Amino acid sequence: DVRNEITEMNIVDIAHLLMELDKKRLLILFRILPKEIAAGVFSYISLELQQYIIESITDREINNIVSELFLDDAVDFLEEMPSNVVKKVLRNTDEETRKLINQFLNYPDYSAGSVMTIEFVDLKKQMTVKEALNHIRATGIDKETINTCYVIDKGRKLEGVLSIRKLILADEDTIIDNIMDVDVIYANTLDDQETIASLFKKYDLTALPVVDNENRLVGIVTIDDIIDIIDQENTEDLHKMAAMEPLEEDYLKTSAFVLAKHRIVWLLILMISATFTGNIIKRYEELLQSMVVLAAFIPMIMDTGGNAGSQSSTLIIRGMALGEIRTSDVLKVFFKELKVSLIAGITLALVNFARLVFFERIDIAISAMVCSSLLLTVILAKMVGSILPIAAKKIRLDPAIMAGPLITTIVDAVALSIYFGIASKFLNI
Amino acid sequence: DVRNEITEMNIVDIAHLLMELDKKRLLILFRILPKEIAAGVFSYISLELQQYIIESITDREINNIVSELFLDDAVDFLEEMPSNVVKKVLRNTDEETRKLINQFLNYPDYSAGSVMTIEFVDLKKQMTVKEALNHIRATGIDKETINTCYVIDKGRKLEGVLSIRKLILADEDTIIDNIMDVDVIYANTLDDQETIASLFKKYDLTALPVVDNENRLVGIVTIDDIIDIIDQENTEDLHKMAAMEPLEEDYLKTSAFVLAKHRIVWLLILMISATFTGNIIKRYEELLQSMVVLAAFIPMIMDTGGNAGSQSSTLIIRGMALGEIRTSDVLKVFFKELKVSLIAGITLALVNFARLVFFERIDIAISAMVCSSLLLTVILAKMVGSILPIAAKKIRLDPAIMAGPLITTIVDAVALSIYFGIASKFLNI
Ligand SMILES: [Mg+2]
Ligand SMILES: [Mg+2]
Ligand SMILES: [Mg+2]
Ligand SMILES: [Mg+2]
Ligand SMILES: [Mg+2]
Ligand SMILES: [Mg+2]
Ligand SMILES: [Mg+2]
Ligand SMILES: [Mg+2]
Ligand SMILES: [Mg+2]
Ligand SMILES: [Mg+2]
Ligand SMILES: [Mg+2]
Ligand SMILES: [Mg+2]
Ligand SMILES: [Mg+2]
Repeated sequence: DVRNEITEMNIVDIAHLLMELDKKRLLILFRILPKEIAAGVFSYISLELQQYIIESITDREINNIVSELFLDDAVDFLEEMPSNVVKKVLRNTDEETRKLINQFLNYPDYSAGSVMTIEFVDLKKQMTVKEALNHIRATGIDKETINTCYVIDKGRKLEGVLSIRKLILADEDTIIDNIMDVDVIYANTLDDQETIASLFKKYDLTALPVVDNENRLVGIVTIDDIIDIIDQENTEDLHKMAAMEPLEEDYLKTSAFVLAKHRIVWLLILMISATFTGNIIKRYEELLQSMVVLAAFIPMIMDTGGNAGSQSSTLIIRGMALGEIRTSDVLKVFFKELKVSLIAGITLALVNFARLVFFERIDIAISAMVCSSLLLTVILAKMVGSILPIAAKKIRLDPAIMAGPLITTIVDAVALSIYFGIASKFLNI
Repeated sequence: DVRNEITEMNIVDIAHLLMELDKKRLLILFRILPKEIAAGVFSYISLELQQYIIESITDREINNIVSELFLDDAVDFLEEMPSNVVKKVLRNTDEETRKLINQFLNYPDYSAGSVMTIEFVDLKKQMTVKEALNHIRATGIDKETINTCYVIDKGRKLEGVLSIRKLILADEDTIIDNIMDVDVIYANTLDDQETIASLFKKYDLTALPVVDNENRLVGIVTIDDIIDIIDQENTEDLHKMAAMEPLEEDYLKTSAFVLAKHRIVWLLILMISATFTGNIIKRYEELLQSMVVLAAFIPMIMDTGGNAGSQSSTLIIRGMALGEIRTSDVLKVFFKELKVSLIAGITLALVNFARLVFFERIDIAISAMVCSSLLLTVILAKMVGSILPIAAKKIRLDPAIMAGPLITTIVDAVALSIYFGIASKFLNI
């Protein structure tokens, strides 16, 4: 029958199947799922449908689901629910879980505490391997993972870590103390999620223990949630780099009004800044008047400067995000970008000079003036583009804001000053 | 002694420690490591030092390390080595491993084959749980992971998958066939690494089986390598979005010449494109001559258009990379961006109008003309910025190239046409 067929499926696929049904059918199907599967499926469906389900099912059913949900998934869901749903859920939860949920809801956003879960295997170092395996058999069904086990003392202080592989391969009389790994990689509940993600990357972890300020083991973070964090942090950086406040939700689920709100502030700031660049042009009004053709090179100089600067800033911002570039590398970066800008700038200037003189038949003096402005602009753009993100990091600003749009705006002003400065000297006006 | 102290450390930390020593000390320390640890450490040190070590140690030592390395790490390393090092390594490898290495080196770049490894646990469905666990005890020490086991038939065809948790929690007489999961998520050797990464994300996997064209299980991909792939793909997208050919290596390890080579092509293309924008200005030379102040608004209009367009294109490119936006969503995106651009455009235009009239004391007619050009530019920029990445994907181009720099260049031409078009009509010239 349907029930059997569905329970054979992967829970993620069941969730996707449910999300394609109309609400009535979704509810019918959801209610016939065995409770362990129901909880798993629940954690993979959209917030909107989670809310709909909770509002539609009985108190008993709610209790069944919440008691089967991993704590981190329960907390993630409750964080997004309106207070009537939260109350309904907490009312149908046992005392202990309710306390834990409230405690977890209080960890700061983006901290280890806010992403960890509590369903881990804990062992004692006096146990034998056999006792440990029996302990896992008795409790393992409810754990988020049994692949890594944690050894704690009577005060719940973290003493060691042990993979299931070591346990299985060891002789059953071996004492845990003799095979556990004491060089444990761990985090504190208040550590930032980005710091934790870099630990996973550095040590190729699949789970990381989290301790409180008294070094007591209070939870674990698992790799599946870290992958979501990596995506989230990358999205955040990208949005910032395009001069937006980062979106919290999917683009298609965000209203036009919220989308606009996240974009307007930076657009305004950059628009006002660009008028200062306009003022530079105004200052050279007479020069322009006597030689209007100068205006025709403005887009080329501004755009090339902006592009050259964005390339540098993107490389540096990304390199810092991946930990490949540190603020102490500032001099290395400076000289590297100087060389690159000379190679790129001279190439561009020469190509442009040839084009201006031979194809556009522009006066050699003007062409030379335009191309030397171009060269200087590329050099300065790459300096500004590479040094500003490092400077931002140094003063604890997010380097991601020193990207294309802001760099372009700064470089525009510099570029036009150079251009008109050179033009007025060069053409003796 | 030192040896004991070091072998207690995490292999990643040993690798980092070695990389900080001079070459002579590095070699001494490396050679006293027990061979299982040596291989692990070897896979975490830089390519340069890997090469140095291989060139400095004996044939016997090479054999020891290569036989302990996971195949994917051996292949990753050999891919980057000069041919004399490759020959030296292959000469000291047994027949079977040599064949496998050659086979793995032949998988296309960025395919599942090129990132998988072969050290997985395979079981038969007729086995009991006890037999399976004994099989794991006998072979598990050399496996990349035992956390997920794969069930294959006599012809090595993949039949099912089984977590170590299920094995441990099951009664020891249970037949594997009765507890294995037959709804297996798997990939083909030729699948792209990005496709595989999305399977890991969708199903929260920690390992994925890879089959050949005859459905035979030939390898597994593990989550630690997927995290590297996610980083790599994100870096690639970011570099493309900043108008560069993606770098393969760390920024600091790449020479200025290579860095320049990766940037020049796009800078040239965009520079030439920008001269077309310059030609638009040239066409309105007379208009400009009679009203030079018009030039002062060029940066503001160009930059705001570029920024507005980059915001949209970044949101859409990222949304598509995460699978949140599909090409079939094009109409939804169109109308959303239309609304956003109206909200943002009108706000910007009003603020700018007030500023021009009250602060800069510009003529109302000119201010109105500038601000309506601005509004139209923002609307068009957001349309271009959101639709072009979707169109690129539709014709199987990488949407990431339709980002800031290219969008800006396109929008510049559109913006200036609008601006001067309106100006010439509006001012009746
Ligand atoms: Mg959370
Ligand atoms: Mg790694
Ligand atoms: Mg979780
Ligand atoms: Mg999860
Ligand atoms: Mg963050
Ligand atoms: Mg960040
Ligand atoms: Mg620009
Ligand atoms: Mg490879
Ligand atoms: Mg996931
Ligand atoms: Mg690997
Ligand atoms: Mg690896
Ligand atoms: Mg790719
Ligand atoms: Mg890509």
